[in-house]
Amino acid sequence: MSHPNDPKLKSFIDVAADSDFPIQNLPYGVFSTPDSAQRRVGVAIGDFVLDLAALESEKLIDAGAAGIFAQPSINAFMAAGPQTWSRVRMQISQLLRHDNATLRDNASLRQRALMPRKGVQLHMPFVVSGYTDFYSSKEHATNVGVMFRGKDNALQPNWLHIPIAYNGRASTVVVSGTPIIRPQGQLKPPSAEVPSFGPCKRLDFELEMGVVIGGASQMGTRLTEQQAAEMIFGFVLLNDWSARDIQQWEYVPLGPFQAKAFGTSISPWVVTREALEPFRVQGPAQNPTPLPYLQQKGANNYDLNLQVDLRADGAKDYAPIACTNFKYMYWSSVQQLVHHASSGCAMNVGDLLGSGTISGPEKNQRGSLLEISWNGSEPIELPGGDKRSFFEDGDSLSIHGWCQGEGYRIGFGEVEGTILPAK
Amino acid sequence: MSHPNDPKLKSFIDVAADSDFPIQNLPYGVFSTPDSAQRRVGVAIGDFVLDLAALESEKLIDAGAAGIFAQPSINAFMAAGPQTWSRVRMQISQLLRHDNATLRDNASLRQRALMPRKGVQLHMPFVVSGYTDFYSSKEHATNVGVMFRGKDNALQPNWLHIPIAYNGRASTVVVSGTPIIRPQGQLKPPSAEVPSFGPCKRLDFELEMGVVIGGASQMGTRLTEQQAAEMIFGFVLLNDWSARDIQQWEYVPLGPFQAKAFGTSISPWVVTREALEPFRVQGPAQNPTPLPYLQQKGANNYDLNLQVDLRADGAKDYAPIACTNFKYMYWSSVQQLVHHASSGCAMNVGDLLGSGTISGPEKNQRGSLLEISWNGSEPIELPGGDKRSFFEDGDSLSIHGWCQGEGYRIGFGEVEGTILPAK
Repeated sequence: MSHPNDPKLKSFIDVAADSDFPIQNLPYGVFSTPDSAQRRVGVAIGDFVLDLAALESEKLIDAGAAGIFAQPSINAFMAAGPQTWSRVRMQISQLLRHDNATLRDNASLRQRALMPRKGVQLHMPFVVSGYTDFYSSKEHATNVGVMFRGKDNALQPNWLHIPIAYNGRASTVVVSGTPIIRPQGQLKPPSAEVPSFGPCKRLDFELEMGVVIGGASQMGTRLTEQQAAEMIFGFVLLNDWSARDIQQWEYVPLGPFQAKAFGTSISPWVVTREALEPFRVQGPAQNPTPLPYLQQKGANNYDLNLQVDLRADGAKDYAPIACTNFKYMYWSSVQQLVHHASSGCAMNVGDLLGSGTISGPEKNQRGSLLEISWNGSEPIELPGGDKRSFFEDGDSLSIHGWCQGEGYRIGFGEVEGTILPAK
Repeated sequence: MSHPNDPKLKSFIDVAADSDFPIQNLPYGVFSTPDSAQRRVGVAIGDFVLDLAALESEKLIDAGAAGIFAQPSINAFMAAGPQTWSRVRMQISQLLRHDNATLRDNASLRQRALMPRKGVQLHMPFVVSGYTDFYSSKEHATNVGVMFRGKDNALQPNWLHIPIAYNGRASTVVVSGTPIIRPQGQLKPPSAEVPSFGPCKRLDFELEMGVVIGGASQMGTRLTEQQAAEMIFGFVLLNDWSARDIQQWEYVPLGPFQAKAFGTSISPWVVTREALEPFRVQGPAQNPTPLPYLQQKGANNYDLNLQVDLRADGAKDYAPIACTNFKYMYWSSVQQLVHHASSGCAMNVGDLLGSGTISGPEKNQRGSLLEISWNGSEPIELPGGDKRSFFEDGDSLSIHGWCQGEGYRIGFGEVEGTILPAK
């Protein structure tokens, strides 16, 4: 049996070379169809969704517990653990191979188990247990620091020692396509004597990856690098919508709260850690050397391209505004998770860890409008002539991500959202 | 029918005048017994627990859905809404009255439905959806501010305008009696050049009340004062264990993270908002006047006594170290909840809102060791001769709370925890 990551594997389903979803990917999502509103687990393959609940009921895949894919989230499957993840991945890979007749030559089964992706409704793929947002791009932290504190004090003293993070709000993590209503909040521009309450005027995005945790740890215990690595089920694209003006006034001393609580968008397909294995790379050199509990032997970064596009209100097309790579992150996802549990904090299946804004060393690699427009002093010009420092109502933002293999790509699809006016 | 809050109501169960659980209280909890490990919902009455699952199966109480009390949490009951809360409270009150024979004179039913509290195991009463910790005592914020920034800059500029809060970690909210393992983390005392990793040396408590949210709000919507008030199901005692040294090094700029993630303890009985109605009082005058969205007409504070006791490692008895009152809080629970949803943040059944440390104007009313020992400069002396600035291993902390009526009290029981050595 070929390994599911084998670049030579072909499916009986035609998959274009630039498709996000070749047989080497097999990301998990939750979907429903016009015929059946029941939310169930599927896998993206080319332009199709493979219905795992249907395959499970035919006993063609086996995750160890009946009905595990007939549920409206992948949490139960994730809780089954890494050995089950690998076994099921192999089963699905086998079923989709060009030379396996089981599904290929069974028209009735194909009818029930394979549906065009265009016709399905995608939902939140997992129940978010806890949402934590890190701040782990040195370029991003430096850009923000230079803007607000000047070049000499750009990085806070703790930044090179700790994967800095705050707890986010799990209740407003939503799937791609969910409109984002412009938040209201307390605003106090430097020129104002007192704060006022009204619609955010500095609405921003943050380009991030989200790590989806598939294991649990007990309160009072810590995690080794290896334990943490094995608890990572997969990754999604993540947009941490941010109200910069609300944040500016509220965040001292306890951190962002309402500035980040109104919405966080994720892509609907969870790309597994296993599918990303061929794209591991070393992260940037860490200097000073991290404390022993944070030291890692593995190459825990990923060579993962990220593309950000903005469509101004009324414009026909998206225009690129940034293009960067996940590999630039200073602190890896494994280091983040090890730190998260370092006090004895219990981790749960369904925890979501935002990587923090992913900026690269170049100007076109910045992962937020705050950085791209340099705090509004350098508005971007869009092809139609529109200028933007922050979002206007009706603007849409789209993020794509993919790892490029030889002749195929492991893609994440898209996380997209449109700004609706404040209520 | 008398109102369940009528001070004259008597139960056929003897309840001492200083019991926390007279017939006017009827707090909800989740318990199991040596006979049955099934977790189910009960109400505390005097020295007994009333098994609501048993009463429900006898059709003596009706929450509108079968088996709602046979569950291991009160979340489903809370989700049934305020009218159901009131109806069930009335049904329970009626069943426990001295002049109602239904339960009183049915020895077999009493045997099945009433068990001595001493013999039951209490569990987490609800599944915590999200945990948010506020910072709403002016005395506490001022004390901390004076210690770290001096008298003239004690309160941050936003503090009088915003009920400041951060998202906490829901996964480590535990029920009273759960041991707390001393956390480890990055420490960097001012004298050190670089941080080191090791056991927290400045382990503290924070005396708080927890608001238990029994309703939900949609993402993108805000809450009025009245809507927020009606979403509050009840209150618990809460101890927000805090690692001051971890906090000091990690908290700029995104707020506390691992310093608060290792454990938060709550009392096992959720005292309902309805039971506390007779004890409403006006909070402190708010100057400057809050922005319109935060203005309240109701008296949303409570005259609720709070007592903190410490038992040093090896000591036989607890000794009082603080005594204060929930009424001192500058921002009310309703204002906190209104602010929490102000950006459009979705609220959920089971959300837990910590009030923030409750300190009063007097020196003996301080709600943390940080304040009581004035950052370690004035260690407290305990009766046995022990001195404490922060917790030693083996120390236990206990918090009690009660509203004092005429001849009865609405009590919360206790939240207690013992510090175990770092692993």
